[in-house]
Amino acid sequence: MDPENIFPSFDIDVEGIITAIAENGYRKVLLQGPEGLKRGLPLLAEIIEKGTGARVLIDAEPCFGACDHAGERALAAGADALIHLGHSDIPSMDRNMPVPVHFFHAEMKVKWDMLHAGLKKIVETVSSKRIALFTTVQHISLLDQAKRFLEDHSATVLIGEPGGREAFPGQVLGCSFSAAEGLELENASLLFMGTGRFHPMGLSTSTGKEVHTLDPVTGAVGKITTMERERFLRKRFGSIQKARDLLDGGCMTGILIGSKPGQRRVELASDMADLLDVKGYDYRMIVMDSVAPMKLFTLGLDLVINTACPRIALDDSVSYVRQGIVMITPVELRMALDELPWSEYRFDEEW
Amino acid sequence: MDPENIFPSFDIDVEGIITAIAENGYRKVLLQGPEGLKRGLPLLAEIIEKGTGARVLIDAEPCFGACDHAGERALAAGADALIHLGHSDIPSMDRNMPVPVHFFHAEMKVKWDMLHAGLKKIVETVSSKRIALFTTVQHISLLDQAKRFLEDHSATVLIGEPGGREAFPGQVLGCSFSAAEGLELENASLLFMGTGRFHPMGLSTSTGKEVHTLDPVTGAVGKITTMERERFLRKRFGSIQKARDLLDGGCMTGILIGSKPGQRRVELASDMADLLDVKGYDYRMIVMDSVAPMKLFTLGLDLVINTACPRIALDDSVSYVRQGIVMITPVELRMALDELPWSEYRFDEEW
Repeated sequence: MDPENIFPSFDIDVEGIITAIAENGYRKVLLQGPEGLKRGLPLLAEIIEKGTGARVLIDAEPCFGACDHAGERALAAGADALIHLGHSDIPSMDRNMPVPVHFFHAEMKVKWDMLHAGLKKIVETVSSKRIALFTTVQHISLLDQAKRFLEDHSATVLIGEPGGREAFPGQVLGCSFSAAEGLELENASLLFMGTGRFHPMGLSTSTGKEVHTLDPVTGAVGKITTMERERFLRKRFGSIQKARDLLDGGCMTGILIGSKPGQRRVELASDMADLLDVKGYDYRMIVMDSVAPMKLFTLGLDLVINTACPRIALDDSVSYVRQGIVMITPVELRMALDELPWSEYRFDEEW
Repeated sequence: MDPENIFPSFDIDVEGIITAIAENGYRKVLLQGPEGLKRGLPLLAEIIEKGTGARVLIDAEPCFGACDHAGERALAAGADALIHLGHSDIPSMDRNMPVPVHFFHAEMKVKWDMLHAGLKKIVETVSSKRIALFTTVQHISLLDQAKRFLEDHSATVLIGEPGGREAFPGQVLGCSFSAAEGLELENASLLFMGTGRFHPMGLSTSTGKEVHTLDPVTGAVGKITTMERERFLRKRFGSIQKARDLLDGGCMTGILIGSKPGQRRVELASDMADLLDVKGYDYRMIVMDSVAPMKLFTLGLDLVINTACPRIALDDSVSYVRQGIVMITPVELRMALDELPWSEYRFDEEW
């Protein structure tokens, strides 16, 4: 059995996993991966068992990020360590883990001609040839090649340093865009390599600039325009206004604390509570693992300030509205309470 | 605000909760309850906050039993203790908890005339007036009154001692029927006071006897007949036979380990693995918190030996069959592998 055949779209460092288990003398490990890799985990577990002699348990819970690692379930199941696939480490996450956690990210395979064609289109489109390059961890090793290609086409490439939640230069997360912070972006074009519109929208909101997009698998290019960012902001301003009305109407408000290892912002939740106390609004504190509309609906909540995963309030808001729930981020609560001007809108990155 | 109005169908010892928090000097507690009590938790949290000055966080995850307590989420959210509503303690459960856990069960309110009318029907129906009485924790304080009523109607009442998983005499759980074990049942009639057919079916399977049922809220009486028990057994034998065929056909088999505090049967899972090893069958070890069909389907499993909550394989089997998955208990695996005769069928109570 060849690991290549288990995950045909991804590169995973199977040798590295086997080495980590052997070198540390683990006898029993828990293997965890996100939904896109789940189907392959039983075969991968078998390969690792054969390569190490260790017992490999498979974690069957949904998994959404490195913040969501199963270190505590590993301990519960009697494993010596967790092998977490598909995401890179969050260096600033609480290191006080019950068992050692090893992160092995998964890189999507690309066809170079597709990627190059896309990069060529970008270089022909951008207004400034000073290009700031960003990506997610599934494409992180493409950065160097993309940089070289762009430079060969007479562009200058900027790649930002990681912040506390990223493992690599140029990497962005749904909850952190630190890679944009140290860069001089005034006369630069921004390029996000990856899929989906959430990350480039975060970049655009964080920097106030348009963001070019390139899907490195298909080579498709696109853009987060100022108009699209403003449309996004109008929706968020709508939620902030609704939150204000709900608070004034004496609604049932919850401050959500996430229990996942990389989402436990207990102090931020406490700051939100203080803010509501000062303004005389009532609220309850809610603890949750996987945030889901039905769990909040069951508690009868109308308004939820989410200090767990910041992405949920922004990306999944429709599912909450359907349950009659307005969900906002801590930044947005500060705006609703006039502690922060609406013009300073940004994603929630307070870790 | 009166706690009576928060949970109109239940009696909960709110004063006891307040005393426990005050006596232990807790400053921050996590409050957890099952789905039936969830809606009332925000108001109850407010009452407790006013009565103690402590901060009360509400756990929003689904909750299915004392085995499923949120001691670890309490720690994650920075709470000093967990207040668990709706279930009684499982004394034999791992005491190595990250924070102290206080259990307060909830008793369903009954109308005595309904209950008495039901008991009268029972006493007129039973073949033997030696009545062994069983119930679940929601009705536990009715046992004494029911016993007196039956004795006043010339019956003799037997109430069994709790085993390691029960807190009270006469109590049964979906995963333990120890209260039947010490009793001389040969010439006795069995009576289960409660709702649903799962617990009395377990009693019937465990004792090999018919079980009378009485819903203490409505007064409705019924019976688990030998025929109904045999129909249940035929279904389980069907699953055991299917498991045997699947194993022989080289199916994808999983041994499921539960990560909930009262469901962590790591050694039993290891015994199941040894059994499959000896017989030359392949399998993977799977770790899960809330057991759900889709999580097993995603991993591509055909057959699952569930060492987590025993009730799931028996009570929810249809949901698993729909996903093309056969789920069996450890007892049933032993039968499938001819380690235990099918005539000795019993519920999974190996804790």
